[in-house]
Amino acid sequence: MTTTTRYAFDTDTANTAVGEHEYALDLSERWTTMAGTANGGYLLASCLQALRREIPQPDLLSASAHYLRPGVIGPARIRTEVARIGRRTATGTALLTRDDREIIRVLATFTDLAKAEGQTVERGEPPVLPPPDRCVNPLEAMGWSAATIAGQVEFRTAEVPGFFRGEPGGTAAADFWLRFADGRPADPIALALLVDSAAPVVFDLGVSGSSTIELTVHIRRRPAPGWLACRVRTNHLVNGFHEEDFDIWDSTGALVAQSRQLALIP
Amino acid sequence: MTTTTRYAFDTDTANTAVGEHEYALDLSERWTTMAGTANGGYLLASCLQALRREIPQPDLLSASAHYLRPGVIGPARIRTEVARIGRRTATGTALLTRDDREIIRVLATFTDLAKAEGQTVERGEPPVLPPPDRCVNPLEAMGWSAATIAGQVEFRTAEVPGFFRGEPGGTAAADFWLRFADGRPADPIALALLVDSAAPVVFDLGVSGSSTIELTVHIRRRPAPGWLACRVRTNHLVNGFHEEDFDIWDSTGALVAQSRQLALIP
Repeated sequence: MTTTTRYAFDTDTANTAVGEHEYALDLSERWTTMAGTANGGYLLASCLQALRREIPQPDLLSASAHYLRPGVIGPARIRTEVARIGRRTATGTALLTRDDREIIRVLATFTDLAKAEGQTVERGEPPVLPPPDRCVNPLEAMGWSAATIAGQVEFRTAEVPGFFRGEPGGTAAADFWLRFADGRPADPIALALLVDSAAPVVFDLGVSGSSTIELTVHIRRRPAPGWLACRVRTNHLVNGFHEEDFDIWDSTGALVAQSRQLALIP
Repeated sequence: MTTTTRYAFDTDTANTAVGEHEYALDLSERWTTMAGTANGGYLLASCLQALRREIPQPDLLSASAHYLRPGVIGPARIRTEVARIGRRTATGTALLTRDDREIIRVLATFTDLAKAEGQTVERGEPPVLPPPDRCVNPLEAMGWSAATIAGQVEFRTAEVPGFFRGEPGGTAAADFWLRFADGRPADPIALALLVDSAAPVVFDLGVSGSSTIELTVHIRRRPAPGWLACRVRTNHLVNGFHEEDFDIWDSTGALVAQSRQLALIP
């Protein structure tokens, strides 16, 4: 490893350059899902950590990931290609392989969010939630804590959602607080993991599994430290395919990330 | 050209194989925006028409495009790479160049929507609109008809939106009907063009230009023939960057496409 950091996110997404545009890393068992394979957000963030090494702009702006195969934990390779480095933005591709089989392919654009200077008009509102210290930890009620990623990310909800207790409510909607369990502050690439770190809200419709096909995340601002407020919705489950919209506001009430994934119920 | 078809969409997105995984096409002036360059949805659909030639699954499912440079009309090349062909889905990359400069890079996944057999739960509703024949054609009131794409796509609105008359209303929201002007029925790849074919609703905030950075579209069903009902929203304009959500329902009231783009006001 080229870096030694104290946070799980940094340790487990770190990579070593092993050739031109090629990086090695170990997919850690600390970010597996109930299915026992690497979480999709963790795979995406790992690809972005490699790509950022070749791009001058400091902030992830937009990343699109297509998921090809389950990511079994263990040694993996990431290959990067920079498509264009412009004055304001830069774009590149990263693809992660296990045993020469492609797991995930990512297209991402970076910018310097501190230099964004245009107009701001907000029509959206963060979710209305009690303060985190008056909320409950829903994972204490749920078998989903069998997923090791549940040890890395903390959640707080006003009350335990029905589907966390095995009683789906049929709404496919959830609002909650979220943060890294070890206190790591979020940054744009960490947000790309966090938008895929919760139990799919489609579980509230009584299904028990969901595989991501595509996930896109847009970073709207650098997040302030502290708890992140999340609003998650699935409005259309069509013949087994569903979207999940996952928006995140930081502790100051500012929208910091918008994501949507398309997923399939097996 | 390898195909002769009577519809503008098919003629203008057609390509000729000129090498292994390489295709030639002419970017047509029939799909330019007010800026005089090729519409982003037209560039995306052109890439998808090339990629589909190498993929057995018949339907576009999900496409993510990152826009690198304006697409000047004229001769262009598309290079494709198939990442994985699976039983249910297949994924590949396409990139379009003009004079060896990359204009757009696309990641897309295809499937056979007729074989999707899972559960359906709908929480969304199409926009409430008068029938198309009791609506107005908003482009008749707008200088945006200077864009040649406005000759290829027809719109119908309950009333002319303020920003079409030079009087921005500050809502950044629009509901309308849409179809190809020459009567071509929509299909999944055509929907990938249509989600980027209208005037950006951010114009309703008084701005006059917007450049797409990233656009993702998910196809949820094969569309029925006829007018398409569209709901378009921008909720967050942050330091010049804004999202635009563009959802399309077909003439039977079924959701057929969901898209989001991230764009920058120049």
